[in-house]
Amino acid sequence: MKLAKQVATNITWHEGHVERADRFKLLKQKGATIWLTGLSGSGKSTVAFTAEHALIEQGHFAYVLDGDNVRHGLNKNLGFSPEDRNENIRRIGEVAKLFADAGVLTFTSFISPYRADRDQVRDIHEQAGLTFIEIFVNAPLEVCEQRDPKGLYKKARAGEIPEFTGISAPYEEPLKAEIVLDVANHSPQECAAQIIDYLTQHNLLTA
Amino acid sequence: MKLAKQVATNITWHEGHVERADRFKLLKQKGATIWLTGLSGSGKSTVAFTAEHALIEQGHFAYVLDGDNVRHGLNKNLGFSPEDRNENIRRIGEVAKLFADAGVLTFTSFISPYRADRDQVRDIHEQAGLTFIEIFVNAPLEVCEQRDPKGLYKKARAGEIPEFTGISAPYEEPLKAEIVLDVANHSPQECAAQIIDYLTQHNLLTA
Repeated sequence: MKLAKQVATNITWHEGHVERADRFKLLKQKGATIWLTGLSGSGKSTVAFTAEHALIEQGHFAYVLDGDNVRHGLNKNLGFSPEDRNENIRRIGEVAKLFADAGVLTFTSFISPYRADRDQVRDIHEQAGLTFIEIFVNAPLEVCEQRDPKGLYKKARAGEIPEFTGISAPYEEPLKAEIVLDVANHSPQECAAQIIDYLTQHNLLTA
Repeated sequence: MKLAKQVATNITWHEGHVERADRFKLLKQKGATIWLTGLSGSGKSTVAFTAEHALIEQGHFAYVLDGDNVRHGLNKNLGFSPEDRNENIRRIGEVAKLFADAGVLTFTSFISPYRADRDQVRDIHEQAGLTFIEIFVNAPLEVCEQRDPKGLYKKARAGEIPEFTGISAPYEEPLKAEIVLDVANHSPQECAAQIIDYLTQHNLLTA
């Protein structure tokens, strides 16, 4: 492997890592974790992906962490015991923190039914000086159960899924969410716009 | 929270997630994991940060995962048993995979002494259709021990650190590294240039 002299001469080299503020400035945005919580079927992922798409098209860097890319990878060695559920959310929170530190507008789309778990994630962000935005994707249980996109409520009602959030396990609504989305009465586009408006108003789309 | 009608009307909305290829195209680069392996004190982090800095200044999106941001967060509940060491590298590999999928040029800076662990990380990337670049930060033990930036070799020789890689625990050199850095005879800038040259030649800095 030859050395790339021509590259070396084009670059101003700096040892030492890029400070977060400098990275945000170079990326022209501030990293943050945008934590969507809500019942199964409430539309968390649809809203997250809609917002991600719009942000990327506007030249911003956004990414969605959800069950599809986390449960079968990073958290594949976790089950559904209380300890494992807590560790599941803790790891997701830590990964979101890394993405936010990197400068990414990071959406997480997990039911995350327990207030204590969400508050723990908020704490690790605030301790690291990073923005944490809790979004309550607020849909009545009846609406979610009627949608039932994955047929999970039907199985839960039939007793085939134990401890299903909203049916046989609690969902603890956020008490201090930065944003509440009324997903029963607004489209995913309107909800995504509400999020992007919040990001704009809080100067996260500049640096 | 009012709805941001003005934002909504400026945006072309898409439901559904952004395909990886589209995201890479919008970011004008391809995500990849650039895995630096080598002895303690070989200069992994210095090279990684130098390359990160140069890439970001050129308008690319790079990030370094290292002990500082991973060990005290995501992996804080892991010790140094063989199982925990393996789980440490596995989680780092999974997080790097998420960053690469997001489109980030993701450097990891960990001793990662075992070939099997590194190959496992390579496998999860290749199975996901993502680029994995193994970089052997090749410095003779004598050079690392002489540098000893954290005083760890001194402690290891004094028996204060058990199972220290290179002293009392093995380091398995890569057999198929994409890049070998001769860090004893080249500056961090030259090594970073060698990496950036590789990324350029393999079309990772365009999409």
